[in-house]
Amino acid sequence: MFMRIDKLQAALPEPKRADPNAGAALQELLGGKYGEMSTLGNYMFQSFNFRSKSKLRPFYSLVASITAEELGHIELVSNGVAMLNNGPGDQESNADISDAPYADMTKTRLAASFLSNGGGAMPMNSNGVSWNMDFVTTTGNVIIDLLHNFHLECGARIHKLRVYETMTEPTGREVCGYLLVRGSVHAHAYALALKQLTGVAIEKVLPTPNINLDKIPECQKYLQEGSHRRLYRFSTDDYSEMKGIWGNGEMALPGDPPGMLEVVDGYPEGGKISDMAGTYSAFSPDYAPEEMFEIASKLYTASR
Amino acid sequence: MFMRIDKLQAALPEPKRADPNAGAALQELLGGKYGEMSTLGNYMFQSFNFRSKSKLRPFYSLVASITAEELGHIELVSNGVAMLNNGPGDQESNADISDAPYADMTKTRLAASFLSNGGGAMPMNSNGVSWNMDFVTTTGNVIIDLLHNFHLECGARIHKLRVYETMTEPTGREVCGYLLVRGSVHAHAYALALKQLTGVAIEKVLPTPNINLDKIPECQKYLQEGSHRRLYRFSTDDYSEMKGIWGNGEMALPGDPPGMLEVVDGYPEGGKISDMAGTYSAFSPDYAPEEMFEIASKLYTASR
Amino acid sequence: MFMRIDKLQAALPEPKRADPNAGAALQELLGGKYGEMSTLGNYMFQSFNFRSKSKLRPFYSLVASITAEELGHIELVSNGVAMLNNGPGDQESNADISDAPYADMTKTRLAASFLSNGGGAMPMNSNGVSWNMDFVTTTGNVIIDLLHNFHLECGARIHKLRVYETMTEPTGREVCGYLLVRGSVHAHAYALALKQLTGVAIEKVLPTPNINLDKIPECQKYLQEGSHRRLYRFSTDDYSEMKGIWGNGEMALPGDPPGMLEVVDGYPEGGKISDMAGTYSAFSPDYAPEEMFEIASKLYTASR
Amino acid sequence: MFMRIDKLQAALPEPKRADPNAGAALQELLGGKYGEMSTLGNYMFQSFNFRSKSKLRPFYSLVASITAEELGHIELVSNGVAMLNNGPGDQESNADISDAPYADMTKTRLAASFLSNGGGAMPMNSNGVSWNMDFVTTTGNVIIDLLHNFHLECGARIHKLRVYETMTEPTGREVCGYLLVRGSVHAHAYALALKQLTGVAIEKVLPTPNINLDKIPECQKYLQEGSHRRLYRFSTDDYSEMKGIWGNGEMALPGDPPGMLEVVDGYPEGGKISDMAGTYSAFSPDYAPEEMFEIASKLYTASR
Amino acid sequence: MFMRIDKLQAALPEPKRADPNAGAALQELLGGKYGEMSTLGNYMFQSFNFRSKSKLRPFYSLVASITAEELGHIELVSNGVAMLNNGPGDQESNADISDAPYADMTKTRLAASFLSNGGGAMPMNSNGVSWNMDFVTTTGNVIIDLLHNFHLECGARIHKLRVYETMTEPTGREVCGYLLVRGSVHAHAYALALKQLTGVAIEKVLPTPNINLDKIPECQKYLQEGSHRRLYRFSTDDYSEMKGIWGNGEMALPGDPPGMLEVVDGYPEGGKISDMAGTYSAFSPDYAPEEMFEIASKLYTASR
Amino acid sequence: MFMRIDKLQAALPEPKRADPNAGAALQELLGGKYGEMSTLGNYMFQSFNFRSKSKLRPFYSLVASITAEELGHIELVSNGVAMLNNGPGDQESNADISDAPYADMTKTRLAASFLSNGGGAMPMNSNGVSWNMDFVTTTGNVIIDLLHNFHLECGARIHKLRVYETMTEPTGREVCGYLLVRGSVHAHAYALALKQLTGVAIEKVLPTPNINLDKIPECQKYLQEGSHRRLYRFSTDDYSEMKGIWGNGEMALPGDPPGMLEVVDGYPEGGKISDMAGTYSAFSPDYAPEEMFEIASKLYTASR
Repeated sequence: MFMRIDKLQAALPEPKRADPNAGAALQELLGGKYGEMSTLGNYMFQSFNFRSKSKLRPFYSLVASITAEELGHIELVSNGVAMLNNGPGDQESNADISDAPYADMTKTRLAASFLSNGGGAMPMNSNGVSWNMDFVTTTGNVIIDLLHNFHLECGARIHKLRVYETMTEPTGREVCGYLLVRGSVHAHAYALALKQLTGVAIEKVLPTPNINLDKIPECQKYLQEGSHRRLYRFSTDDYSEMKGIWGNGEMALPGDPPGMLEVVDGYPEGGKISDMAGTYSAFSPDYAPEEMFEIASKLYTASR
Repeated sequence: MFMRIDKLQAALPEPKRADPNAGAALQELLGGKYGEMSTLGNYMFQSFNFRSKSKLRPFYSLVASITAEELGHIELVSNGVAMLNNGPGDQESNADISDAPYADMTKTRLAASFLSNGGGAMPMNSNGVSWNMDFVTTTGNVIIDLLHNFHLECGARIHKLRVYETMTEPTGREVCGYLLVRGSVHAHAYALALKQLTGVAIEKVLPTPNINLDKIPECQKYLQEGSHRRLYRFSTDDYSEMKGIWGNGEMALPGDPPGMLEVVDGYPEGGKISDMAGTYSAFSPDYAPEEMFEIASKLYTASR
Repeated sequence: MFMRIDKLQAALPEPKRADPNAGAALQELLGGKYGEMSTLGNYMFQSFNFRSKSKLRPFYSLVASITAEELGHIELVSNGVAMLNNGPGDQESNADISDAPYADMTKTRLAASFLSNGGGAMPMNSNGVSWNMDFVTTTGNVIIDLLHNFHLECGARIHKLRVYETMTEPTGREVCGYLLVRGSVHAHAYALALKQLTGVAIEKVLPTPNINLDKIPECQKYLQEGSHRRLYRFSTDDYSEMKGIWGNGEMALPGDPPGMLEVVDGYPEGGKISDMAGTYSAFSPDYAPEEMFEIASKLYTASR
Repeated sequence: MFMRIDKLQAALPEPKRADPNAGAALQELLGGKYGEMSTLGNYMFQSFNFRSKSKLRPFYSLVASITAEELGHIELVSNGVAMLNNGPGDQESNADISDAPYADMTKTRLAASFLSNGGGAMPMNSNGVSWNMDFVTTTGNVIIDLLHNFHLECGARIHKLRVYETMTEPTGREVCGYLLVRGSVHAHAYALALKQLTGVAIEKVLPTPNINLDKIPECQKYLQEGSHRRLYRFSTDDYSEMKGIWGNGEMALPGDPPGMLEVVDGYPEGGKISDMAGTYSAFSPDYAPEEMFEIASKLYTASR
Repeated sequence: MFMRIDKLQAALPEPKRADPNAGAALQELLGGKYGEMSTLGNYMFQSFNFRSKSKLRPFYSLVASITAEELGHIELVSNGVAMLNNGPGDQESNADISDAPYADMTKTRLAASFLSNGGGAMPMNSNGVSWNMDFVTTTGNVIIDLLHNFHLECGARIHKLRVYETMTEPTGREVCGYLLVRGSVHAHAYALALKQLTGVAIEKVLPTPNINLDKIPECQKYLQEGSHRRLYRFSTDDYSEMKGIWGNGEMALPGDPPGMLEVVDGYPEGGKISDMAGTYSAFSPDYAPEEMFEIASKLYTASR
Repeated sequence: MFMRIDKLQAALPEPKRADPNAGAALQELLGGKYGEMSTLGNYMFQSFNFRSKSKLRPFYSLVASITAEELGHIELVSNGVAMLNNGPGDQESNADISDAPYADMTKTRLAASFLSNGGGAMPMNSNGVSWNMDFVTTTGNVIIDLLHNFHLECGARIHKLRVYETMTEPTGREVCGYLLVRGSVHAHAYALALKQLTGVAIEKVLPTPNINLDKIPECQKYLQEGSHRRLYRFSTDDYSEMKGIWGNGEMALPGDPPGMLEVVDGYPEGGKISDMAGTYSAFSPDYAPEEMFEIASKLYTASR
């Protein structure tokens, strides 16, 4: 079972203007080959399909718990995409829609994001092609699945680095900075799991690509709070068995601020979810939504 | 953010034998047009993309909270699929693999489920075709999204009814029975949301298809405990504003056990996740995994 | 613009029993590479995209008119699929659905056809994979498009021949027999168009595959009525310019009953569309639909 | 069976220049999630798969007849796309193709529309992704199919409104204006069908999005001629039974010009199909096509 | 550039009977997630896209040379599929096709393989779903690409082992046996490449899954000839630089027959390609092809 | 079996600057409907699936040999794409990646080509959509397959002409020029094969589109060396039987430099493969790759 908390894992700054091409680029981190839909899909189905759970508890716990974190990554990237596409919104009721107010949209890279989704995020890549199960590996064999996961997190790192290199808006840069730190944790964790099972010190391949996080200004505050040494349980009562892999005297990677790895109860403090002001002229949440707001206000009062 | 609990939303009986064709049929409820990947994908991205959240809080809360429940539905169906495909497993180490031990697999409907996934669940339909974003509706317009959701839950109901009609194994029947009750709740909830916003009593279309849950023996224990009248918050602190829609004096649907609708803190009691014994001859978790089990056992001790 | 007539292009015998695997095979003629969705899609979009229509009127008319016939082919195959999947239906109201009445469906080839579509036809092939635009050729170049069309009709012929070789039910055999005759006409017509434009007697490649229609008992009545020599205009007022290509002294192919080619006003006599009795236990049109029938009956009276 | 008439349902003004990005945006109305391929595909397969047709005649007739209209919508949008991509064409024979005459095409959004299709329309969305069967709902259950259709027409409305907001060319604006009026009719019609079957006044949800057609200048002439109150039979002899649903004393929606709903024999007057002048330098219909035109001219004479 | 030799990399025994379900299972090794289309696609595009080739010559040579071997693997699996589907063929000219000679095909798993391809192999998996670019990883980063390749070969190994476990026909078993030996070589080679670049002895993860080739009777003759210690250059003049990785004193993996690794000039001896007798009743190469054979015979004489 | 030679079939000039939109357009020749993946896929699978090879040797040899040439075409186009995307590269180690060095990439047409592939070629079209098996025709019937191949080469010609018309960079123009000549050879060859089998002089349809190669400056040097009259065997010992079709007194097409057709042993002289300088700031082959280069240099020495 899964629970939900109405916060993001990291606080995202509000964009000052709509920038749909930046939103489109960020889609690669959502539905691209190495995007968060892929990391989620892999770990989620591996955790569902895991055999001999009781005999392999630390490994099962690791995969199952990271799944929960990945759900928050999907949420974070999706919020980033929607915020970049939306900008400050347009709250003019009774706007004149007959004067081609969105003529510029024919020039954006992913016109369908506006036409079909009103600027919302979708599980697709930066070219507008859908995520699908071809990105999911769940062989049932623990070693192969872990090898895949380790490779996947390295691939996700190059994805994030390159998307970051295209971003000028703080909203998108923050998404990349946060995910680069957390992705490093996951790559490290899968490497340690493989090391336990095979005796091969595969974590020495890290960092791949060959660049430390100290090159990324947006990563620094997360490094300083020790995020790179922490696996959150994202659970109240379960998954503590992953301490046998993450912890157990293992240390942060060379190049990152030093310290011991630790499993942390609960979840990161995170940040507020943007209210995302509506764009009435694009019919989101609707054209002239005042009556709708009034109804909602009454229901809100009734709910208390 | 999302948290995880190491339980299923409902307890599933262990299958006595592997039945991969039943597992294949159950895949329709996971990755088919109206499967749980679709309900999850719709509500999850709608909640990410929601505009004017503060002004439409009860509606946002409803969609956001049901998202969390749908994650557990994906988990439930996936566990059902994997359990039906796996059966009691095969724990013989050093099995002879050269005598075509899986010759029967060439006759099953979805051979790739064995060949690529070792019997694991995948986000695909019962014909082996991937789920994808074409099943996601997130227009940004609240009325259209809610109309879609209402229709989707009705469609999901016919899906579940028909899959149920093909199932002889208790594992699969229990999945269908539980989901039929919860799907009715979601259809009812979206209808009430629409009624609030439009004044149209669209819940009177229910039940669709035109058959009450009292015809399904597997639904009875859930009806008796009042599951059909409950929306769980699936959250510790958030989403209580949906009480303005689900609650507020509204009653259970005619044909179901009577009573008032209520938002329930927390989550259902649920059931244990199957350990799913390995099938060593299929290399899940591996061939001759004894050493792997020993390593895990030491790590487990270290984690405590 | 298009008009519709509530008849099929050929009368189909009612199947005595449901035969979903035969229905699945027939899907290849609907959504397979060379199926009717492909022939329709090619000619329809070519006719929409046709350049210099006035200067190339006979060629435009040929493609535009055959498009209308192909719509009827889609209808014919779809009816065949649905009839084979449905059989005589099940009109018992209040059937007990809890005893796995459709357990056999887990063994059929395309389970989703039952689970999602209640036995209805879908634009997919016999493996359950969707038709899509990759099967559409519309280059804007008249010669290339016609070469493609000629090749397509030859490919469609081998499709139909092989599907026919798998069919034991008269419903499916009739579909194949009719389409084999009409497909030959289209192949012949595109060959003649190419001959006019290039001087190459490409119709001498026919028949391909190398077998005459006299080997197919189900074709005989259509040959005897001269269907192989006729292009219907499928229009009241338009497309007569194709007489310059089909007609103009051209003769039937050797191996078929001899005679001159002719453009025929209107459309073939065709046959009745099956009422397709409902299957209430599969919720088609619904479970216990008596009230629905009564409402319809009153509306029917009101409409007269 | 289907017949064809060599006219469009509405007259489209010729574009003064090629505008491939506008053509690309318009593709969303052809092959997008809520595009005309989707509305056609849904109603067409529902009509093919309809059970108990004789007992549900008014409902069958409604779906079957609207199918015919949707074919004309596909034709209208496709013509709009091709006209916008083509502009006035280029009739210079012996043009020099070696000086990169189409260098600008590397900057358009859908380069393949030029490279593969010479500017022709294709069944894909505005991001270049194919339409496919995932957009087709045909459950066999009348209520679910009608609920889907109602939701689909509302979704199609937001599609059309947003595409309209991006259009500056009269060709594309006219397509949107016409389709907005006709789409409203279809949404209204499915709502009335549901009201008859369920007693729920679902038409009160309209208009969704919450904006009347009087805001769209291009809609006015169609409203003035009463198009919003008319369902054309698109048939000579059939489908009059839908008068029980559309008609029967029902009135136009509030906000539109008042009046009674009526089923109209035949079809709208419509407009001429553009000749679409060729672009010889893009090999459409060919490079230096004069000989081809001469051949066609002789065949045309022979056909009379 | 690529050259072709009219031989297979391994000799395949002729099947005694057609076994289309075995052919369908073998498709997983062609177009499945870890099939030969995937290994080919990855190494081929990585070799095309390789940066700084001159500075990384040994690594480029390894990837480029294995690409050539993978082409032969595709050929081998495809021949296996086609041979299993075809069996001894049917050379009766003038067969009666009207008596449903292929009625059994409606029961095979991949009907379209017969209907569209006459039993030929296609780039799809065992469920009939196409291979596509989602299976290709080419990031431009050498470490990530090599990590991917190592994981891919481990995944391919579990694919081959499981397909082998379903095979009773010698044709299919031989395909699996040969590919298991060669796949081990490739996994070993990519591990050594990574060891050189990172210092991590990742080859110690092998064998994965945890089973030695001595359990597979069909592997023994290849092991005895030392195939597991050889990389063929598959080139007359190029790619010898991979000796720096494969060779250089490195030894066979523990569990396999011992010996030094070596790069071998040229290519393996291989075996004859099956003539694959036609099936005239399925129109392959055609119905009544005698005249076709005669023409070919004359051309053959003319070519000498 | 296939061998590889470390050269391209034609020498490509180095681009002076990166031009990702030109690279994107060139992708249409790789993975578009009529791209080289399609020609390769068709001939390769046809050659694998060929029936009665010994009796149809000249035809088998033709298809099998052209397959080998097509592999080189894929290589040529892929190199062109990667070179255009890469330009001269960026060899600055320790570049500052935090200042959005790739901000322009959000404006390119195929952002994912940079984000996921670092500028590498992929088997997709110019809109970013994957190549797949729907582009492969292998019916088992020799006539239909050859008709398809003839049509395919004509379609490929219009593809190449239009891509050429968009290209200003010499790298891309050279790719088009070379492929136009070789594509003409293949179209001609399949026409002659069909003429032999059917007696129809289908080569008279050429050239289609209706434009001679003398209009393309980049074709001239290949015409002058007689490339348009040559089929290379791309084999040391095999496929000479195609001389019965290509040769045998047949002459070059009118409009091309005159002369007899000939089968040439071996392969064209071709050109050097670009070293493609790395782009360290994009992590290709890596960030700060000096150590990697040093390792490679030592291994290179060890290999000699």
